[in-house]
Amino acid sequence: MDSLKVDSKRILDNLLKLAEFTDSQKPYTRRAFSPIYYEARKWLKDLMESVGLETAMDAAGNLIGYLKCSNKGSKYLIIGSHIDTVEDAGRFDGMLGVTSGIEVCRVLHDSNIELPFDIKVVDFLCEEPSDFGVSCIGSNGLVGNLTGSHLARLNSDGKTLREAISEAGGVPDSLNAPLISPNEVVGYLELHIEQGPVLEKEQVPIGIVTGIVGISRWILVINGESGHAGTVPMSLRKDALFGAAEVISRVEKLAKDLSKMVHFVATIGKAEVLPGMPNVIPGEVRLVLEARVLEEGDFHKFEADLKDIVSEVCIARGLGYTIEQLSHTLPVKLDARLQEVIAQSAKGLGLRYLFMPSGAGHDAAIMAQIVPAGMIFIPCRNGVSHAPQEWSDEEFVGNGAQVLLNSCIILARQYDTVSGS
Amino acid sequence: MDSLKVDSKRILDNLLKLAEFTDSQKPYTRRAFSPIYYEARKWLKDLMESVGLETAMDAAGNLIGYLKCSNKGSKYLIIGSHIDTVEDAGRFDGMLGVTSGIEVCRVLHDSNIELPFDIKVVDFLCEEPSDFGVSCIGSNGLVGNLTGSHLARLNSDGKTLREAISEAGGVPDSLNAPLISPNEVVGYLELHIEQGPVLEKEQVPIGIVTGIVGISRWILVINGESGHAGTVPMSLRKDALFGAAEVISRVEKLAKDLSKMVHFVATIGKAEVLPGMPNVIPGEVRLVLEARVLEEGDFHKFEADLKDIVSEVCIARGLGYTIEQLSHTLPVKLDARLQEVIAQSAKGLGLRYLFMPSGAGHDAAIMAQIVPAGMIFIPCRNGVSHAPQEWSDEEFVGNGAQVLLNSCIILARQYDTVSGS
Repeated sequence: MDSLKVDSKRILDNLLKLAEFTDSQKPYTRRAFSPIYYEARKWLKDLMESVGLETAMDAAGNLIGYLKCSNKGSKYLIIGSHIDTVEDAGRFDGMLGVTSGIEVCRVLHDSNIELPFDIKVVDFLCEEPSDFGVSCIGSNGLVGNLTGSHLARLNSDGKTLREAISEAGGVPDSLNAPLISPNEVVGYLELHIEQGPVLEKEQVPIGIVTGIVGISRWILVINGESGHAGTVPMSLRKDALFGAAEVISRVEKLAKDLSKMVHFVATIGKAEVLPGMPNVIPGEVRLVLEARVLEEGDFHKFEADLKDIVSEVCIARGLGYTIEQLSHTLPVKLDARLQEVIAQSAKGLGLRYLFMPSGAGHDAAIMAQIVPAGMIFIPCRNGVSHAPQEWSDEEFVGNGAQVLLNSCIILARQYDTVSGS
Repeated sequence: MDSLKVDSKRILDNLLKLAEFTDSQKPYTRRAFSPIYYEARKWLKDLMESVGLETAMDAAGNLIGYLKCSNKGSKYLIIGSHIDTVEDAGRFDGMLGVTSGIEVCRVLHDSNIELPFDIKVVDFLCEEPSDFGVSCIGSNGLVGNLTGSHLARLNSDGKTLREAISEAGGVPDSLNAPLISPNEVVGYLELHIEQGPVLEKEQVPIGIVTGIVGISRWILVINGESGHAGTVPMSLRKDALFGAAEVISRVEKLAKDLSKMVHFVATIGKAEVLPGMPNVIPGEVRLVLEARVLEEGDFHKFEADLKDIVSEVCIARGLGYTIEQLSHTLPVKLDARLQEVIAQSAKGLGLRYLFMPSGAGHDAAIMAQIVPAGMIFIPCRNGVSHAPQEWSDEEFVGNGAQVLLNSCIILARQYDTVSGS
């Protein structure tokens, strides 16, 4: 069983075939619920069946390929990710996890090797942010997080999420409870590109994800006094932008200091300066800040310091301000035993690995709410993701999928004796 | 002649009557070339004639009211400003200078006092920024600054400036040279609200304008590396906004330091952060900076320091940048003798005065190119201008107009003997 090898070329070929099912106008765009998305899922279902999987759709609209073992009443391992994309996307984010799961099953099936548990390869419905204001729709539906108010949300065409899930093949009325029973599940594994620059920079082929960050967002409004850019002397100005610049610089220092002690990033991705005319002193600046942490307590530390900074700067300058929290999601820890299994798998293959957090959200963060979940990262070129340049070399793809396969085998050994051909 | 008094209530009443000729939807808006503008000019022409002025339109579309003396072949003094406004304007900017000029002539006319020179009260055509991308159209036309290429400019309706000046009653073909001969002119005087907070803050009723600032504008583009706000560690980021914040803070310090030594203001009124999404690290920041100075050399000092700051910050942070000058107008000095005449006038009335620059542009800056020009400022409430709240109390209006009248009398005494009734 140790000689089982994934075929990296086959995975890459499948990724490139999948990339043909994308919007002809926007590179590699395959938005969930679009006609091209459904065409791609049909192709994916055929791929699953061609390598020996039984297929089904669950009530949350997740496409599932089963590799069943002869052990009746056995548990199952879930390997999942998604094939929907953002706009102007790449060819790996999500698709890598699904096609690698299928390849793992293909290798097992072709070798006539049977694990002591079933494998379910899941293509989760709509992981990326959707027009309904909800992301990870399929995984949230699977774990029982989608409420009636979520299902009633409308997209820009006036369609409800309930209707959209029905059209995708789901059964929205069954989504009031988890669709699976956690004690039937061995665990959840997801292979994904890192979407950041760390593995490439460190020249390490495998990342083992320790947790998935929580994200808090705030809107900070700084109010000064607008006025004629020529007639108000520097000493009499209450320029909101000059105040905002001091706040931004101090937030930068705070974030860099925090990031030396704990996993922490802060970004001010959106800034508006009003009224925004060259000859008018800025009267108002609106900033959207976000912080991502692995430990909930780090949010509180950051938020308290942020409020101190804003208050100090604004009081000293005679500026007004408001800070309002826009959103808040909790950080998630991934399963320690699965991290150890992945490490053992990489070690057995002679691959260096790094324990690291995921700064981006994933279906794994949702699955971790009810089952042990693990994630494997591989490097992507220049750390780029969510862009047509998104790329990972065949070697990295092969390493990742092999670590995934060997993790399954290690889990099988730990689970029970394995029957081989 | 020293007992001649302007009627401040009459001026204020005329300002409020003029304010009835404004857009019914937008408070106090009277854009040049609009139907309501022409209605207001008709009313103004009637007002001029009702107080004994002869009226005419010059080739640049300026409405002129003459108070003629019996001294044939005498010189003339010009008192001017404008009655067009920006959008959402106030009731004083421009209108005060025109109505006060008319009041000065009314007082002289009603008292049967004749100065040894004529007075021309000028309502300049379109002082405010126009849809043609030109401002101070009437004064620029009068001094001979409007070229064929200016006249060929189109507004958003596809009308040329040439056509618009014709419709206003001007003769565009005559604008290839100054419309007046400087040696016929005693000088140019303009009364205006300060449009800033200095006089009010210092509790001084009269400002004597020493010069009108030149304005330079630059666009500064700072380029970093856009990226996922979750997956790129703080230490690997090239965040364009963090770089921009440092530049802005250093520009603030530079501007404040310069303003302690010379007349200097700098404003960053426009800032764009791209791509401008909460979860994406800013890859580019675009800032529009302007500086206003009274001495051309101060531009060069600022620009050199600005370039040093941007280069230092961007090199240290691994960011790219470009700085491009968008526009540049030279500062203008107002006539020293006229400043002295205005000071003597205020002193004679027991009014405190302050020598001060104008941070805003005016027709006086254009007129100063060919004749001696002087400007009188009065306080405006909270320094507000170009807004419906723009206001100056009757007392201030009366002070300003009286200083204007007495300046005319001082000029007359200096010019020649004055014949009284």
